[in-house]
Amino acid sequence: MGRTSDAREKILSAAQSLIELRGYSALGVAEICKAAGVPKGSFYYFFASKEALALAVLDEHWAGQQATWTRILNSAAEPLQRLRRLFEETEAGQLVGQQSCGTVSGCLFGNLTLEMSNQTEAVRARLQEIFDAQVGMVASVIAEALERKEVTVIDTREAARAVVAQLEGQVLFAKLYNNTHRLGPLWANCLALLGARPPREAVAGI
Amino acid sequence: MGRTSDAREKILSAAQSLIELRGYSALGVAEICKAAGVPKGSFYYFFASKEALALAVLDEHWAGQQATWTRILNSAAEPLQRLRRLFEETEAGQLVGQQSCGTVSGCLFGNLTLEMSNQTEAVRARLQEIFDAQVGMVASVIAEALERKEVTVIDTREAARAVVAQLEGQVLFAKLYNNTHRLGPLWANCLALLGARPPREAVAGI
Repeated sequence: MGRTSDAREKILSAAQSLIELRGYSALGVAEICKAAGVPKGSFYYFFASKEALALAVLDEHWAGQQATWTRILNSAAEPLQRLRRLFEETEAGQLVGQQSCGTVSGCLFGNLTLEMSNQTEAVRARLQEIFDAQVGMVASVIAEALERKEVTVIDTREAARAVVAQLEGQVLFAKLYNNTHRLGPLWANCLALLGARPPREAVAGI
Repeated sequence: MGRTSDAREKILSAAQSLIELRGYSALGVAEICKAAGVPKGSFYYFFASKEALALAVLDEHWAGQQATWTRILNSAAEPLQRLRRLFEETEAGQLVGQQSCGTVSGCLFGNLTLEMSNQTEAVRARLQEIFDAQVGMVASVIAEALERKEVTVIDTREAARAVVAQLEGQVLFAKLYNNTHRLGPLWANCLALLGARPPREAVAGI
């Protein structure tokens, strides 16, 4: 982190925390700058608008998450085990968040999709790119599993959408019930969606 | 609608439309009253707070949706066909909304879960009751299908959570991509989640 970008990083970090706590619409630039500990003038030096900040928060968050997903989904493990690992790390990540701030914050992308996609087209487009990328990464793993005849899907991309939709839906419940155990059935549900032969313990988990 | 409750109904209706368009946090009481065409004093006659209004909006919306779900899920049709009908009516309902306001508004309960559940415990509790009721209704249908040996789930309530999570996840995508066709795969995905033998056309839909 270079010296010149310290203020920008502080603003981004404060904005992400505040957005996770309270959403985007209710936040003001003054509040973000106060939480970041930077003068309000700095904000408009780095960001043309609050919308520009939202886009930067999305990019920053996706850069981190994309690295995690790439590490997990491109690993040398068997394809379906990589998906299992993705769900386990998602649950662990939400638990860390809950332990640090008291509540499950859910998925920043899902949160901002429901809050903002009908309000700003730039944010909608960026969120579409992010979810397209997520679906593409999951679809590649499903395609590998299909080659190994471990799943029975016909359209790998549609199957990946179902898996990511299930993930978003269960994360929504984990947030609503403030309980990360809601993410426990993701693996068994994923196997069912993919028409995979579930291992014994996964069946018991349904 | 009694004369005395006209203003209350107008406020509720305006609030629901505005919340669907722009979320809850960014709304002010003055704006809601202006859209409803009622004096601001009326608001506090009917609602103790903006949070009380949010709860009333949830109750009103759930009353309507619960009636629809009950009609569909308690019908004389075969159990799995009732679930299919639920998905078809959900897609049709989102399409009507899109045609009237230009964008897919998604699920009010999902929207407010992600926006508000970590901010007000009263809203969180009400949304939990609503989703518990949805899951219970779907679980009853799954139990009927299980008795007929049409599905192979072990825990009907967990299976119902998976179905409702898939619904919420795909509605999120329908809103993000402003495209109700995103809801098309719900039926095939539901059959997969329930371990049902899918009809030929459902397989083709995956």
